[in-house]
Amino acid sequence: MRIQTFAQYNKKRFGTHLMSQTVIVVDVLRATSSIIWACRNGANRVIPVSDAGEGAAIATRLGGCIMAGERGGVKLPGFDLGNSPKEFAPEVVKDRNIIINTTNGTGAIKAAEGAANVLIAAMLNHDAAARKAAALGLDVTILCAGTDGEFSADDICAAGAIASSLCKYADVTEQCDLTWAAKVLYGEWKAGRADLSQTYHYTRLLELGFGEDVEFCLQENITEVVPLYTNGIAHA
Amino acid sequence: MRIQTFAQYNKKRFGTHLMSQTVIVVDVLRATSSIIWACRNGANRVIPVSDAGEGAAIATRLGGCIMAGERGGVKLPGFDLGNSPKEFAPEVVKDRNIIINTTNGTGAIKAAEGAANVLIAAMLNHDAAARKAAALGLDVTILCAGTDGEFSADDICAAGAIASSLCKYADVTEQCDLTWAAKVLYGEWKAGRADLSQTYHYTRLLELGFGEDVEFCLQENITEVVPLYTNGIAHA
Repeated sequence: MRIQTFAQYNKKRFGTHLMSQTVIVVDVLRATSSIIWACRNGANRVIPVSDAGEGAAIATRLGGCIMAGERGGVKLPGFDLGNSPKEFAPEVVKDRNIIINTTNGTGAIKAAEGAANVLIAAMLNHDAAARKAAALGLDVTILCAGTDGEFSADDICAAGAIASSLCKYADVTEQCDLTWAAKVLYGEWKAGRADLSQTYHYTRLLELGFGEDVEFCLQENITEVVPLYTNGIAHA
Repeated sequence: MRIQTFAQYNKKRFGTHLMSQTVIVVDVLRATSSIIWACRNGANRVIPVSDAGEGAAIATRLGGCIMAGERGGVKLPGFDLGNSPKEFAPEVVKDRNIIINTTNGTGAIKAAEGAANVLIAAMLNHDAAARKAAALGLDVTILCAGTDGEFSADDICAAGAIASSLCKYADVTEQCDLTWAAKVLYGEWKAGRADLSQTYHYTRLLELGFGEDVEFCLQENITEVVPLYTNGIAHA
Protein backbone atom coordinates (compact mmCIF):
# COMPACT_ATOMS: atom_id res chain seq x y z
CA MET A 1 0.00 0.00 0.00
CA ARG A 2 1.11 3.55 -0.73
CA ILE A 3 0.08 6.43 1.53
CA GLN A 4 0.03 10.06 0.51
CA THR A 5 -1.10 12.98 2.64
CA PHE A 6 -2.34 16.40 1.63
CA ALA A 7 -2.30 19.24 4.16
CA GLN A 8 -5.21 21.02 2.51
CA TYR A 9 -7.58 20.35 -0.34
CA ASN A 10 -7.38 21.84 -3.73
CA LYS A 11 -10.11 20.79 -6.12
CA LYS A 12 -7.84 21.08 -9.12
CA ARG A 13 -5.43 18.51 -7.73
CA PHE A 14 -7.99 15.81 -7.14
CA GLY A 15 -8.80 14.39 -10.48
CA THR A 16 -9.16 10.91 -11.80
CA HIS A 17 -6.10 9.60 -9.94
CA LEU A 18 -8.26 9.19 -6.82
CA MET A 19 -10.51 6.73 -8.67
CA SER A 20 -8.43 3.78 -7.53
CA GLN A 21 -7.81 5.05 -3.99
CA THR A 22 -9.36 5.13 -0.57
CA VAL A 23 -9.47 8.75 0.60
CA ILE A 24 -9.63 9.41 4.33
CA VAL A 25 -10.89 12.93 5.02
CA VAL A 26 -9.81 14.61 8.25
CA ASP A 27 -11.06 17.83 9.83
CA VAL A 28 -10.39 17.34 13.53
CA LEU A 29 -11.61 20.82 14.55
CA ARG A 30 -14.43 20.06 14.01
CA ALA A 31 -16.38 18.90 10.95
CA THR A 32 -15.32 15.26 10.66
CA SER A 33 -15.40 14.89 14.47
CA SER A 34 -19.02 16.13 14.41
CA ILE A 35 -20.01 13.86 11.51
CA ILE A 36 -18.47 10.84 13.24
CA TRP A 37 -20.26 11.72 16.45
CA ALA A 38 -23.59 12.21 14.68
CA CYS A 39 -23.27 8.80 12.96
CA ARG A 40 -22.17 7.15 16.19
CA ASN A 41 -25.26 8.59 17.88
CA GLY A 42 -27.63 7.10 15.33
CA ALA A 43 -28.12 9.81 12.70
CA ASN A 44 -29.70 8.33 9.59
CA ARG A 45 -27.78 10.35 7.00
CA VAL A 46 -25.33 13.25 7.25
CA ILE A 47 -25.19 15.33 4.09
CA PRO A 48 -22.20 17.68 3.82
CA VAL A 49 -22.85 20.72 1.63
CA SER A 50 -20.54 23.52 0.55
CA ASP A 51 -23.04 26.34 0.34
CA ALA A 52 -26.26 27.41 1.99
CA GLY A 53 -28.30 27.30 -1.22
CA GLU A 54 -27.41 23.65 -1.85
CA GLY A 55 -28.29 22.84 1.77
CA ALA A 56 -31.67 24.58 1.56
CA ALA A 57 -32.55 22.78 -1.68
CA ILE A 58 -31.78 19.35 -0.19
CA ALA A 59 -33.62 20.21 3.05
CA THR A 60 -36.74 21.20 1.08
CA ARG A 61 -36.65 17.97 -0.94
CA LEU A 62 -36.08 15.65 2.03
CA GLY A 63 -38.15 17.52 4.66
CA GLY A 64 -37.58 17.34 8.40
CA CYS A 65 -33.81 17.76 8.22
CA ILE A 66 -31.62 19.12 10.99
CA MET A 67 -29.58 22.04 9.66
CA ALA A 68 -26.08 22.30 11.14
CA GLY A 69 -23.19 24.52 10.27
CA GLU A 70 -20.78 27.32 10.97
CA ARG A 71 -18.66 29.96 9.30
CA GLY A 72 -15.45 31.02 11.01
CA GLY A 73 -16.40 28.79 13.96
CA VAL A 74 -19.72 30.51 14.65
CA LYS A 75 -23.14 28.83 14.14
CA LEU A 76 -24.93 29.98 11.00
CA PRO A 77 -27.96 32.20 11.73
CA GLY A 78 -31.27 30.30 11.77
CA PHE A 79 -29.58 26.88 11.88
CA ASP A 80 -30.57 24.18 14.38
CA LEU A 81 -27.02 23.26 15.35
CA GLY A 82 -23.52 24.69 15.04
CA ASN A 83 -20.47 22.45 14.60
CA SER A 84 -19.81 21.22 18.16
CA PRO A 85 -19.70 17.40 18.22
CA LYS A 86 -21.55 17.34 21.52
CA GLU A 87 -24.57 19.07 19.93
CA PHE A 88 -25.03 15.89 17.87
CA ALA A 89 -26.32 13.96 20.90
CA PRO A 90 -28.42 10.78 20.53
CA GLU A 91 -31.66 12.48 21.61
CA VAL A 92 -31.10 15.13 18.94
CA VAL A 93 -29.86 13.17 15.94
CA LYS A 94 -31.20 9.59 16.23
CA ASP A 95 -32.83 8.51 12.93
CA ARG A 96 -32.69 12.08 11.61
CA ASN A 97 -31.16 13.47 8.43
CA ILE A 98 -28.59 16.18 9.03
CA ILE A 99 -27.35 18.73 6.54
CA ILE A 100 -23.97 20.14 7.56
CA ASN A 101 -22.15 23.12 6.12
CA THR A 102 -18.77 24.15 7.57
CA THR A 103 -15.85 26.41 6.67
CA ASN A 104 -13.27 23.78 5.72
CA GLY A 105 -14.42 20.21 6.32
CA THR A 106 -17.40 19.84 4.04
CA GLY A 107 -15.43 21.25 1.11
CA ALA A 108 -12.71 18.68 1.70
CA ILE A 109 -15.22 15.83 1.77
CA LYS A 110 -16.73 16.98 -1.51
CA ALA A 111 -13.25 17.37 -3.05
CA ALA A 112 -12.76 13.64 -2.41
CA GLU A 113 -15.88 12.65 -4.33
CA GLY A 114 -14.06 10.99 -7.22
CA ALA A 115 -12.37 8.39 -5.00
CA ALA A 116 -13.15 4.67 -4.93
CA ASN A 117 -13.94 4.95 -1.21
CA VAL A 118 -14.25 8.01 1.03
CA LEU A 119 -13.94 7.51 4.79
CA ILE A 120 -14.59 10.17 7.43
CA ALA A 121 -11.95 10.21 10.15
CA ALA A 122 -10.57 12.22 13.05
CA MET A 123 -8.75 11.57 16.31
CA LEU A 124 -11.99 10.07 17.67
CA ASN A 125 -11.78 7.03 15.35
CA HIS A 126 -8.30 6.96 13.81
CA ASP A 127 -7.51 3.37 14.60
CA ALA A 128 -10.83 2.08 13.26
CA ALA A 129 -10.46 4.28 10.17
CA ALA A 130 -7.03 2.80 9.47
CA ARG A 131 -8.37 -0.74 9.94
CA LYS A 132 -11.24 -0.08 7.55
CA ALA A 133 -8.91 1.46 4.95
CA ALA A 134 -6.48 -1.44 5.27
CA ALA A 135 -9.32 -3.93 4.75
CA LEU A 136 -10.33 -2.12 1.55
CA GLY A 137 -6.86 -2.91 0.19
CA LEU A 138 -6.32 0.13 -2.02
CA ASP A 139 -3.69 2.87 -1.81
CA VAL A 140 -4.66 5.55 0.67
CA THR A 141 -4.78 9.33 0.40
CA ILE A 142 -5.22 11.17 3.69
CA LEU A 143 -6.88 14.46 2.85
CA CYS A 144 -6.71 17.08 5.58
CA ALA A 145 -9.23 19.89 5.42
CA GLY A 146 -6.69 22.42 6.70
CA THR A 147 -7.79 25.80 7.98
CA ASP A 148 -8.75 28.41 5.40
CA GLY A 149 -6.60 26.68 2.78
CA GLU A 150 -3.54 26.45 5.05
CA PHE A 151 -1.69 23.62 6.79
CA SER A 152 -3.43 22.91 10.12
CA ALA A 153 -1.45 21.22 12.90
CA ASP A 154 -4.40 19.36 14.44
CA ASP A 155 -5.33 17.75 11.12
CA ILE A 156 -1.72 16.76 10.40
CA CYS A 157 -1.42 15.11 13.83
CA ALA A 158 -4.55 13.08 13.11
CA ALA A 159 -3.18 12.21 9.66
CA GLY A 160 -0.05 10.97 11.42
CA ALA A 161 -2.18 8.92 13.81
CA ILE A 162 -4.00 7.29 10.89
CA ALA A 163 -0.79 6.68 8.96
CA SER A 164 0.86 5.15 12.04
CA SER A 165 -2.12 2.83 12.47
CA LEU A 166 -2.09 1.96 8.75
CA CYS A 167 1.51 0.82 9.15
CA LYS A 168 0.24 -1.74 11.69
CA TYR A 169 -2.64 -3.04 9.56
CA ALA A 170 -1.22 -2.94 6.03
CA ASP A 171 2.06 -3.48 4.22
CA VAL A 172 3.01 0.15 3.56
CA THR A 173 5.60 0.15 0.77
CA GLU A 174 5.70 3.87 0.07
CA GLN A 175 4.79 7.08 1.84
CA CYS A 176 5.24 10.71 0.86
CA ASP A 177 7.33 13.11 2.95
CA LEU A 178 4.25 14.77 4.43
CA THR A 179 3.07 11.36 5.67
CA TRP A 180 6.52 10.88 7.23
CA ALA A 181 6.30 14.31 8.88
CA ALA A 182 2.73 13.68 10.09
CA LYS A 183 3.80 10.44 11.78
CA VAL A 184 6.68 12.22 13.53
CA LEU A 185 4.40 15.06 14.67
CA TYR A 186 1.77 12.64 15.97
CA GLY A 187 4.43 10.70 17.89
CA GLU A 188 5.72 13.92 19.44
CA TRP A 189 2.23 15.06 20.39
CA LYS A 190 1.55 11.68 22.02
CA ALA A 191 4.84 11.93 23.90
CA GLY A 192 3.96 15.42 25.16
CA ARG A 193 6.79 17.07 23.22
CA ALA A 194 4.63 18.94 20.68
CA ASP A 195 2.13 21.36 22.12
CA LEU A 196 -0.93 21.80 19.91
CA SER A 197 -2.17 24.61 22.16
CA GLN A 198 0.38 26.86 20.39
CA THR A 199 -1.30 26.32 17.03
CA TYR A 200 -3.72 28.49 15.12
CA HIS A 201 -7.05 26.68 14.90
CA TYR A 202 -6.79 25.40 18.47
CA THR A 203 -6.15 28.93 19.75
CA ARG A 204 -8.92 30.44 17.67
CA LEU A 205 -11.53 27.97 18.93
CA LEU A 206 -10.45 28.65 22.50
CA GLU A 207 -10.90 32.38 21.90
CA LEU A 208 -14.40 31.67 20.55
CA GLY A 209 -15.26 29.75 23.73
CA PHE A 210 -15.01 26.24 22.25
CA GLY A 211 -12.35 24.88 24.61
CA GLU A 212 -14.56 21.95 25.54
CA ASP A 213 -14.92 21.03 21.87
CA VAL A 214 -11.16 21.07 21.36
CA GLU A 215 -10.67 18.78 24.34
CA PHE A 216 -13.41 16.47 23.07
CA CYS A 217 -12.04 16.31 19.51
CA LEU A 218 -8.50 15.47 20.64
CA GLN A 219 -9.62 12.26 22.35
CA GLU A 220 -8.28 9.20 20.53
CA ASN A 221 -10.30 6.20 19.47
CA ILE A 222 -13.42 6.68 21.55
CA THR A 223 -15.55 5.12 18.81
CA GLU A 224 -15.28 2.39 16.18
CA VAL A 225 -17.70 4.16 13.86
CA VAL A 226 -16.10 5.21 10.57
CA PRO A 227 -18.66 6.94 8.35
CA LEU A 228 -18.51 6.06 4.68
CA TYR A 229 -19.33 8.85 2.23
CA THR A 230 -21.14 7.69 -0.90
CA ASN A 231 -23.36 9.55 -3.35
CA GLY A 232 -23.17 12.74 -1.33
CA ILE A 233 -24.17 11.10 1.96
CA ALA A 234 -22.14 10.09 5.02
CA HIS A 235 -23.50 7.20 7.05
CA ALA A 236 -22.27 4.76 9.68
CA MET B 1 8.12 39.51 14.14
CA ARG B 2 5.77 37.09 12.39
CA ILE B 3 7.09 33.95 10.70
CA GLN B 4 5.30 32.02 8.01
CA THR B 5 6.57 28.96 6.18
CA PHE B 6 5.63 27.55 2.81
CA ALA B 7 6.44 23.93 1.98
CA GLN B 8 6.69 24.63 -1.73
CA TYR B 9 6.55 27.63 -3.99
CA ASN B 10 3.63 28.66 -6.05
CA LYS B 11 4.14 31.75 -8.15
CA LYS B 12 0.51 32.75 -7.89
CA ARG B 13 0.66 32.95 -4.10
CA PHE B 14 3.61 35.30 -3.95
CA GLY B 15 2.34 38.67 -4.85
CA THR B 16 2.76 42.08 -3.39
CA HIS B 17 2.38 40.89 0.22
CA LEU B 18 6.07 39.86 0.17
CA MET B 19 7.08 43.49 -0.50
CA SER B 20 7.39 44.20 3.21
CA GLN B 21 8.98 40.88 4.14
CA THR B 22 12.32 39.14 4.30
CA VAL B 23 12.06 35.88 2.39
CA ILE B 24 14.50 33.10 3.24
CA VAL B 25 14.69 30.56 0.42
CA VAL B 26 15.66 26.99 1.30
CA ASP B 27 16.56 24.09 -0.98
CA VAL B 28 18.78 21.90 1.15
CA LEU B 29 19.19 19.18 -1.48
CA ARG B 30 20.92 20.93 -3.14
CA ALA B 31 20.49 24.30 -4.86
CA THR B 32 20.73 26.72 -1.96
CA SER B 33 23.50 24.62 -0.37
CA SER B 34 25.46 24.89 -3.63
CA ILE B 35 24.87 28.65 -3.96
CA ILE B 36 25.98 29.23 -0.36
CA TRP B 37 29.07 27.13 -0.94
CA ALA B 38 29.92 28.95 -4.18
CA CYS B 39 29.59 32.35 -2.45
CA ARG B 40 31.57 31.13 0.54
CA ASN B 41 34.33 30.02 -1.85
CA GLY B 42 34.64 33.41 -3.49
CA ALA B 43 32.31 33.31 -6.49
CA ASN B 44 31.69 36.81 -7.80
CA ARG B 45 28.03 36.41 -8.71
CA VAL B 46 25.66 33.43 -8.78
CA ILE B 47 22.77 33.89 -11.17
CA PRO B 48 19.87 31.46 -10.72
CA VAL B 49 17.87 30.88 -13.89
CA SER B 50 14.72 28.85 -14.49
CA ASP B 51 15.34 27.75 -18.04
CA ALA B 52 18.26 26.95 -20.29
CA GLY B 53 17.45 29.71 -22.79
CA GLU B 54 17.58 32.43 -20.16
CA GLY B 55 20.88 30.97 -18.88
CA ALA B 56 22.42 30.92 -22.36
CA ALA B 57 21.36 34.52 -23.04
CA ILE B 58 22.95 35.78 -19.81
CA ALA B 59 26.10 33.71 -20.40
CA THR B 60 26.51 35.19 -23.87
CA ARG B 61 26.10 38.73 -22.55
CA LEU B 62 28.47 38.35 -19.60
CA GLY B 63 31.02 36.02 -21.21
CA GLY B 64 33.28 33.60 -19.31
CA CYS B 65 30.53 32.25 -17.06
CA ILE B 66 30.54 28.86 -15.39
CA MET B 67 27.36 26.99 -16.33
CA ALA B 68 25.97 24.77 -13.56
CA GLY B 69 22.76 22.84 -13.30
CA GLU B 70 20.76 19.66 -13.17
CA ARG B 71 17.42 18.19 -14.02
CA GLY B 72 16.12 15.34 -11.86
CA GLY B 73 19.43 15.38 -9.99
CA VAL B 74 21.59 14.75 -13.08
CA LYS B 75 24.03 17.31 -14.54
CA LEU B 76 22.72 19.04 -17.65
CA PRO B 77 24.53 17.96 -20.85
CA GLY B 78 27.33 20.31 -21.90
CA PHE B 79 27.36 22.13 -18.55
CA ASP B 80 30.57 22.79 -16.60
CA LEU B 81 29.16 21.72 -13.23
CA GLY B 82 26.18 19.83 -11.86
CA ASN B 83 24.58 20.74 -8.54
CA SER B 84 26.95 19.16 -6.00
CA PRO B 85 28.11 21.80 -3.49
CA LYS B 86 31.61 20.33 -3.50
CA GLU B 87 31.97 21.06 -7.21
CA PHE B 88 31.88 24.76 -6.29
CA ALA B 89 35.40 24.62 -4.84
CA PRO B 90 37.55 27.76 -4.39
CA GLU B 91 39.89 26.88 -7.25
CA VAL B 92 36.88 26.52 -9.57
CA VAL B 93 34.63 29.42 -8.59
CA LYS B 94 36.82 32.19 -7.14
CA ASP B 95 36.00 35.54 -8.81
CA ARG B 96 33.88 33.81 -11.43
CA ASN B 97 30.26 34.35 -12.47
CA ILE B 98 28.12 31.23 -12.19
CA ILE B 99 24.80 30.60 -13.88
CA ILE B 100 22.83 27.91 -12.09
CA ASN B 101 19.70 26.12 -13.26
CA THR B 102 18.13 23.43 -11.07
CA THR B 103 14.87 21.48 -10.84
CA ASN B 104 13.35 23.16 -7.77
CA GLY B 105 15.62 25.67 -6.07
CA THR B 106 16.18 28.29 -8.72
CA GLY B 107 12.43 28.54 -9.37
CA ALA B 108 11.82 29.13 -5.65
CA ILE B 109 14.43 31.90 -5.55
CA LYS B 110 12.84 33.61 -8.54
CA ALA B 111 9.36 33.25 -6.99
CA ALA B 112 10.64 35.33 -4.05
CA GLU B 113 11.73 38.21 -6.29
CA GLY B 114 9.07 40.66 -5.07
CA ALA B 115 10.29 40.57 -1.46
CA ALA B 116 12.01 43.41 0.40
CA ASN B 117 14.97 41.10 1.06
CA VAL B 118 15.76 37.61 -0.25
CA LEU B 119 18.26 35.50 1.68
CA ILE B 120 19.65 32.16 0.54
CA ALA B 121 19.74 29.59 3.34
CA ALA B 122 20.18 25.89 4.08
CA MET B 123 21.39 23.74 6.95
CA LEU B 124 24.94 24.95 6.18
CA ASN B 125 24.18 28.51 7.37
CA HIS B 126 20.84 28.45 9.22
CA ASP B 127 21.98 30.26 12.32
CA ALA B 128 23.68 33.06 10.38
CA ALA B 129 20.63 33.33 8.11
CA ALA B 130 18.34 33.76 11.12
CA ARG B 131 20.66 36.38 12.61
CA LYS B 132 20.73 38.31 9.34
CA ALA B 133 16.93 38.14 8.99
CA ALA B 134 16.44 39.23 12.60
CA ALA B 135 18.75 42.21 12.03
CA LEU B 136 16.68 43.26 9.01
CA GLY B 137 13.71 43.59 11.37
CA LEU B 138 10.88 42.65 8.98
CA ASP B 139 8.42 39.77 9.14
CA VAL B 140 9.92 36.60 7.71
CA THR B 141 8.64 34.12 5.14
CA ILE B 142 10.59 30.88 4.91
CA LEU B 143 10.09 29.57 1.40
CA CYS B 144 11.01 25.94 0.86
CA ALA B 145 11.69 24.84 -2.69
CA GLY B 146 10.08 21.45 -2.07
CA THR B 147 10.63 18.57 -4.47
CA ASP B 148 8.69 18.65 -7.73
CA GLY B 149 6.03 20.86 -6.15
CA GLU B 150 5.61 18.66 -3.07
CA PHE B 151 6.48 18.98 0.61
CA SER B 152 10.10 17.92 1.13
CA ALA B 153 11.21 16.75 4.57
CA ASP B 154 14.80 18.03 4.31
CA ASP B 155 13.65 21.56 3.45
CA ILE B 156 11.09 21.59 6.26
CA CYS B 157 13.74 20.50 8.78
CA ALA B 158 15.96 23.37 7.67
CA ALA B 159 12.98 25.75 7.87
CA GLY B 160 12.48 24.53 11.44
CA ALA B 161 16.16 25.14 12.17
CA ILE B 162 15.90 28.71 10.87
CA ALA B 163 12.64 29.36 12.72
CA SER B 164 14.13 28.00 15.95
CA SER B 165 17.13 30.30 15.56
CA LEU B 166 14.85 33.26 14.75
CA CYS B 167 13.09 32.69 18.07
CA LYS B 168 16.47 33.29 19.74
CA TYR B 169 17.33 36.45 17.83
CA ALA B 170 13.95 38.17 17.41
CA ASP B 171 10.72 38.66 19.32
CA VAL B 172 8.51 36.22 17.43
CA THR B 173 4.89 37.16 18.14
CA GLU B 174 3.19 34.94 15.60
CA GLN B 175 3.98 31.81 13.62
CA CYS B 176 1.87 29.72 11.27
CA ASP B 177 1.16 26.05 11.96
CA LEU B 178 3.69 24.89 9.38
CA THR B 179 6.38 26.90 11.17
CA TRP B 180 5.31 25.19 14.41
CA ALA B 181 5.50 21.78 12.71
CA ALA B 182 8.88 22.57 11.13
CA LYS B 183 10.35 23.47 14.52
CA VAL B 184 9.07 20.21 16.02
CA LEU B 185 10.48 18.19 13.10
CA TYR B 186 13.87 19.91 13.32
CA GLY B 187 14.00 19.23 17.07
CA GLU B 188 13.21 15.57 16.48
CA TRP B 189 15.80 15.25 13.75
CA LYS B 190 18.42 16.84 16.02
CA ALA B 191 17.44 14.45 18.81
CA GLY B 192 17.79 11.46 16.48
CA ARG B 193 14.09 10.63 16.63
CA ALA B 194 13.19 11.57 13.05
CA ASP B 195 15.07 9.72 10.35
CA LEU B 196 15.46 11.76 7.17
CA SER B 197 16.94 8.73 5.39
CA GLN B 198 13.34 7.46 5.04
CA THR B 199 12.33 10.48 2.99
CA TYR B 200 11.96 10.91 -0.73
CA HIS B 201 14.58 13.37 -1.94
CA TYR B 202 17.24 11.94 0.37
CA THR B 203 16.57 8.43 -0.93
CA ARG B 204 16.52 9.53 -4.55
CA LEU B 205 19.88 11.31 -4.30
CA LEU B 206 21.37 8.23 -2.65
CA GLU B 207 20.12 6.09 -5.54
CA LEU B 208 21.73 8.54 -7.99
CA GLY B 209 25.07 8.17 -6.18
CA PHE B 210 24.99 11.52 -4.36
CA GLY B 211 25.25 10.16 -0.80
CA GLU B 212 28.28 12.34 -0.12
CA ASP B 213 26.30 15.43 -1.16
CA VAL B 214 23.46 14.55 1.20
CA GLU B 215 25.89 14.14 4.07
CA PHE B 216 27.54 17.44 3.20
CA CYS B 217 24.27 19.38 2.91
CA LEU B 218 22.96 18.15 6.26
CA GLN B 219 25.86 19.71 8.17
CA GLU B 220 24.69 22.60 10.33
CA ASN B 221 26.27 26.05 10.45
CA ILE B 222 29.58 25.36 8.78
CA THR B 223 29.63 28.86 7.31
CA GLU B 224 28.53 32.38 8.25
CA VAL B 225 27.99 33.34 4.60
CA VAL B 226 24.36 34.16 3.80
CA PRO B 227 23.99 35.14 0.15
CA LEU B 228 21.65 38.02 -0.56
CA TYR B 229 19.65 37.84 -3.77
CA THR B 230 19.08 41.20 -5.46
CA ASN B 231 18.30 42.13 -9.05
CA GLY B 232 18.56 38.52 -10.17
CA ILE B 233 21.98 37.93 -8.60
CA ALA B 234 23.04 36.09 -5.45
CA HIS B 235 26.23 37.29 -3.79
CA ALA B 236 27.96 36.98 -0.43
